[in-house]
Amino acid sequence: MKKLEQLHSGKAKTVFRTDDPGKLIMEFRDSLSAFDGKKLSSASNKGYLNARISVKLFELLEQKGIPTHYDSMLTDIDMVVDNVEIILIEVIVRNIAAGSIVKKYPFETGQQLDPPVIVFDYKSDEYGDPMINDDIALALGLATKDELSRIRELALAINSVLVEYLGERNLLLPDFKLEFGRFNGGIILADEISCDTCRFWDKITGESLDKDVFRFDRGDPVAAYREVAKRVVPEIFG
Amino acid sequence: MKKLEQLHSGKAKTVFRTDDPGKLIMEFRDSLSAFDGKKLSSASNKGYLNARISVKLFELLEQKGIPTHYDSMLTDIDMVVDNVEIILIEVIVRNIAAGSIVKKYPFETGQQLDPPVIVFDYKSDEYGDPMINDDIALALGLATKDELSRIRELALAINSVLVEYLGERNLLLPDFKLEFGRFNGGIILADEISCDTCRFWDKITGESLDKDVFRFDRGDPVAAYREVAKRVVPEIFG
Repeated sequence: MKKLEQLHSGKAKTVFRTDDPGKLIMEFRDSLSAFDGKKLSSASNKGYLNARISVKLFELLEQKGIPTHYDSMLTDIDMVVDNVEIILIEVIVRNIAAGSIVKKYPFETGQQLDPPVIVFDYKSDEYGDPMINDDIALALGLATKDELSRIRELALAINSVLVEYLGERNLLLPDFKLEFGRFNGGIILADEISCDTCRFWDKITGESLDKDVFRFDRGDPVAAYREVAKRVVPEIFG
Repeated sequence: MKKLEQLHSGKAKTVFRTDDPGKLIMEFRDSLSAFDGKKLSSASNKGYLNARISVKLFELLEQKGIPTHYDSMLTDIDMVVDNVEIILIEVIVRNIAAGSIVKKYPFETGQQLDPPVIVFDYKSDEYGDPMINDDIALALGLATKDELSRIRELALAINSVLVEYLGERNLLLPDFKLEFGRFNGGIILADEISCDTCRFWDKITGESLDKDVFRFDRGDPVAAYREVAKRVVPEIFG
């Protein structure tokens, strides 16, 4: 597999065409970005740690019957993935109230949300990823009714798998963001599942082990990401 | 029926207790408010016109089998209504894109939304009426799943009745806001349906005949409200 020209570059990943039209390469960069790009930095090894955490969780989900775009790793930071048509909906799954939901509504940080709360945002830098609902998604032509149901069903299934797996590793999963894509007539999980896209809290101390460390200057982000990697992919620490 | 002490005062209406515990009085005031109270004014006869338009539309809906809180008029501006438990959800029904939806998302002003788009906001001055979805409504305990379905069903039925009735009077209904309440074990329409809570456009000229005239300084709001009243309740103009 050859890495050809860059297709687009996001806040933390760059996507490349390959010599296989059915595959892309997602490069996990070391750049850190928060607050819609208002806070920027970079941290050595961050891309590598996120890539390895994502691979492990994608493999876990595939084992549980949930289709993902993950194919293989070409290098430590270059992930080969299916060339899906990305659905422009950011799917946020919340198990414990934290972050924006606490600012927008009368929830307390740490409050259990059971059943989980799913929120759809319109994935658009131009519009600032505004929250949508099913009616708006349909009116904007982002997805069909059946696709929205399937996305919700997959998001809940993914949540169950992750909560259990992470719980066994003393990690809570307050919330996380997923993206899905159309591929071979179905919908599969795309993007990444990492410390950039999830809130991970230590189950005992409640300590943040995710991008909040960077957002709110709570210490060394890479140390936090490494702590998650130690629990999720201990095999990479020889 | 006696008007007793004031229970609370909103931006354009004041609610009073009465000597009948099952009834309240809603007084339609002449005050005008826009942009979350940042723009304030008052206009003679505005309360009266909104009250008469509301009564007419409530009566129409009742005839079509849709339960409302409307009972009778005590004076020109004092409406006797059922003492419902208000559900803290603002229900916005959109048939044509206008206003906030055009700012937030890639819709064009005037674009038909068919089927209509329904949006739920959390009715809270403190939180600025943020948009919610069903999951958030349930997590906040604002309503049950069955209540949310019933509200959606009623909102669509109300929309059909209003679009037809207003269309025959050369008025388009781009969008409007509804509130519902619990009463006698069911859900009924509450609040008002007026030039303060609806967008009304002249079908021929596209001219705004609603609070947008006040919001955007497009002329005399009372002249616009009177034009709607002339078409909806011509009988009050002798």
